[in-house]
Amino acid sequence: MSLHLSLQSIAELVGGKIEQGDPQSIITGINSIAEAVEGELTFLGNERYLPALQSTRASAVLVGPSFTLQLPGKALIRVDNPTFSFTSAIRHFGKSDAVLEVGVHPQAVVSNKARFNPQKVSIAAGAVIGDDVEIGDGCRIGALCSIGAGAKLGEDCLLHPGSIVGPRSLLGNRVVLQSGAVVGSDGFGYELIKGRHVKVDQIGIAQLDDDVEVGANSTIDRARFGRTWIGEGTKIDNLVQIAHNAVIGKHCVIVAHTGIAGSVRMGDYVTIAGFVGVAGHLEICSQVIILAKSGVTKNITEPGAYVGFPAKPLMEGRRQMTAASKVPELLQRLRELERQVAALKGEAPQAKDSKE
Amino acid sequence: MSLHLSLQSIAELVGGKIEQGDPQSIITGINSIAEAVEGELTFLGNERYLPALQSTRASAVLVGPSFTLQLPGKALIRVDNPTFSFTSAIRHFGKSDAVLEVGVHPQAVVSNKARFNPQKVSIAAGAVIGDDVEIGDGCRIGALCSIGAGAKLGEDCLLHPGSIVGPRSLLGNRVVLQSGAVVGSDGFGYELIKGRHVKVDQIGIAQLDDDVEVGANSTIDRARFGRTWIGEGTKIDNLVQIAHNAVIGKHCVIVAHTGIAGSVRMGDYVTIAGFVGVAGHLEICSQVIILAKSGVTKNITEPGAYVGFPAKPLMEGRRQMTAASKVPELLQRLRELERQVAALKGEAPQAKDSKE
Amino acid sequence: MSLHLSLQSIAELVGGKIEQGDPQSIITGINSIAEAVEGELTFLGNERYLPALQSTRASAVLVGPSFTLQLPGKALIRVDNPTFSFTSAIRHFGKSDAVLEVGVHPQAVVSNKARFNPQKVSIAAGAVIGDDVEIGDGCRIGALCSIGAGAKLGEDCLLHPGSIVGPRSLLGNRVVLQSGAVVGSDGFGYELIKGRHVKVDQIGIAQLDDDVEVGANSTIDRARFGRTWIGEGTKIDNLVQIAHNAVIGKHCVIVAHTGIAGSVRMGDYVTIAGFVGVAGHLEICSQVIILAKSGVTKNITEPGAYVGFPAKPLMEGRRQMTAASKVPELLQRLRELERQVAALKGEAPQAKDSKE
Repeated sequence: MSLHLSLQSIAELVGGKIEQGDPQSIITGINSIAEAVEGELTFLGNERYLPALQSTRASAVLVGPSFTLQLPGKALIRVDNPTFSFTSAIRHFGKSDAVLEVGVHPQAVVSNKARFNPQKVSIAAGAVIGDDVEIGDGCRIGALCSIGAGAKLGEDCLLHPGSIVGPRSLLGNRVVLQSGAVVGSDGFGYELIKGRHVKVDQIGIAQLDDDVEVGANSTIDRARFGRTWIGEGTKIDNLVQIAHNAVIGKHCVIVAHTGIAGSVRMGDYVTIAGFVGVAGHLEICSQVIILAKSGVTKNITEPGAYVGFPAKPLMEGRRQMTAASKVPELLQRLRELERQVAALKGEAPQAKDSKE
Repeated sequence: MSLHLSLQSIAELVGGKIEQGDPQSIITGINSIAEAVEGELTFLGNERYLPALQSTRASAVLVGPSFTLQLPGKALIRVDNPTFSFTSAIRHFGKSDAVLEVGVHPQAVVSNKARFNPQKVSIAAGAVIGDDVEIGDGCRIGALCSIGAGAKLGEDCLLHPGSIVGPRSLLGNRVVLQSGAVVGSDGFGYELIKGRHVKVDQIGIAQLDDDVEVGANSTIDRARFGRTWIGEGTKIDNLVQIAHNAVIGKHCVIVAHTGIAGSVRMGDYVTIAGFVGVAGHLEICSQVIILAKSGVTKNITEPGAYVGFPAKPLMEGRRQMTAASKVPELLQRLRELERQVAALKGEAPQAKDSKE
Repeated sequence: MSLHLSLQSIAELVGGKIEQGDPQSIITGINSIAEAVEGELTFLGNERYLPALQSTRASAVLVGPSFTLQLPGKALIRVDNPTFSFTSAIRHFGKSDAVLEVGVHPQAVVSNKARFNPQKVSIAAGAVIGDDVEIGDGCRIGALCSIGAGAKLGEDCLLHPGSIVGPRSLLGNRVVLQSGAVVGSDGFGYELIKGRHVKVDQIGIAQLDDDVEVGANSTIDRARFGRTWIGEGTKIDNLVQIAHNAVIGKHCVIVAHTGIAGSVRMGDYVTIAGFVGVAGHLEICSQVIILAKSGVTKNITEPGAYVGFPAKPLMEGRRQMTAASKVPELLQRLRELERQVAALKGEAPQAKDSKE
């Protein structure tokens, strides 16, 4: 990323204060600590990178309020939140991806029963839009997306290439689907009848409220009936599975490789780290954090952090983890005790003997 | 879902008996316990929902043989299997998705060497059908599906939009692929030669027998040679990986986020819960259940339930899980014992002293 | 796979020595131990298959240097590496998939700003190629692939149907994407501002160096800025997630269902088995093996094998696993000791009493 701006201008742009360095020096680019070269600006977003910072080739660094290190020869701009300020700088100068052109690409396949304002949406080549689909103004539908019959999209949705929206799905405003995301696949429900798994019809829908984002190749099954429902502002990472009839609250964060089984009810501001499984029909209250690789097997009714499989409150979980690591030592101590007790029992008769 | 039918008609439709309520009262819709409103029919499919049932706004409920609760003001229809009867009702009244129209969409891309009866199959816009593909009567190929050269589909298969069938794959009758499913990708096989991973050619195929269903974004690699083979009636959930040369038996159920490594042989009626890994080249006999998040590291030769990593018989696994949760307490008890034994050892010399 | 070749010719082809059998006998096909029929050649690539070998119907077997079993009635060819030799035989005789025809399919959608030699690349039906894309000679772009604006592909890349390359991604030479692979999706980064998760712009790229292969439905997020970078020769299996700004070294192997979190730095020749999670910002040095289902929570600075969650050196991990399986027994032994110590303490006062 190339630019040409004085340190002073950068400081103004990010709302920071120059603590060190020549305000007239020229910044020529923006980059990470590891990849920056001379002339570029970087930032310290995480204390982990302090050692790396010592050897960065960047000429200027955005640092936070608590930064106290000496960095001779580097320009320093102090800001409240280096990560956020850096993002602002990127947004200002960054080369962003080409915006999809407004209008319907001649090689898109759009039902004449679909409803949208062709002056205000963008539909790329190879997209297939079904009957009775409604698309709000400002939506951008990427190449090779499929939107099934009767689906409705609010305004300003962004469907990256190859994302798929099943029939009758409902998407709010500003919903983002990364490539390969599937919304509205059939739920996984069968009845075993005479030795065969007979499909339980899945005729509900998937509903994604405003500002939901779904990661690449994640899957959100539609409900058996009613709806699988992702609340406003919830963000879902890549390769996540949300099963039929699950109801996820608002402003949750669900990290990659997580699976939420059928009919789970989850409150608001729940954070689920990667590789977590939540068993079917459970309830998880608001303000819960589930740590990575946990498995939730019971309702969680108290806010807080949980860990392990089965998931338990963080303190208890950590205690068990620590204890588990001591089992080999524990086995040795037990063996030693057994030896001592055997010896004591051996001594006791001797003692008795000596008394007689 | 909107309808207008007397309770009496509903009872007849589902083959149930009205236990409570006016047979002439009108049912206006079908919905889940939580989402139903007045006038609607719901069902009790799982005892977990008994508390929810007490506060449902539904006017009528399908209940099973063992249901004994008092539900004043609600109409009750007793049936053998509420879940199944409810499904029948849904099937009868539900608005189903638009059926794909028979014929080949003008914007599908179909090789003139593909063989099928255009009066009896449906191929949607954007689908790409390769040379020498055979498609049986009644098949529905969704938008943006790709079927590689030489693949063969039996009758009545349903490929949801964006599913992919690799070259020469064999699909039986009534096979269903959810969106984003990939059948016939290359197996993951390399030889390390002079410091580089050299691809081992993967020239086999993937074969899915009658009534197999593959979930959204699941992947089934083709065999190195021969075939990766999914037996009749087996159902696979979303985001499942089946590696090359695996042979899965009939009527198995494989839940989301599971991975079956290469050359595994699995019997019939095996149920694999979510997030399970099965290591390569293992055999699992018929009638086995593997619980969620387990890792199978050895052959399983006895029917039954298995749990844990490494997976072990359920009883043993549960005992270990329970024991694991007691390790912190166990540590405390060990410390206490060590104290006591030290004290005993301290007393013994005293006792000896006192004897002298 | 059908062929008609003397045993002698096969031996010459694979560079092996006939140890048993008539050199003039005719081999009619190539198959696995389990699926081979009379007249066919198979191979023993893994000692696990020794029992199966005893009952194979194959007429000839490739065996390795250490093979000593008696196999009456079978022809035996001894080679250095049966797996590799078998592959050579397959490559020689195997029916390979139809090669994509050179040229741009009339139903591909190619920007007139894309740069490539139409005589030397193959672009299949339904592929969508964006503005300013560069495609090297020998590349084969499968059906329904999407290549975003400004992406660059080296020579001889192979994109299987339905794979997706995001804008400005960089692919080296001979890069292979299996179907459904997504390269260059947005990283999962948000800042919580006034109760809402606000997207942190992801404006970097994903870079895949020469000979990288990415499995079906795997996802590689682009960097927030700079690049997510997969080193030369690294092979990635299906359903793997590589988060933004991760840097993976050369010649690594990453097995299915693994997730590498953001900004991880990984050395060369790292092998990561299935279902492994690596937490964000960690460093893993070269020549490390992480066993299946492990979770890496700290930097790994020493080559070697690691296992467990949290991941620890193999010996320590195995010791803990073994110890964990002994906890139920340990509990019993502790109870027994407590009983004995209580008895000893009970005896001690008696002993004292008896002294008085």
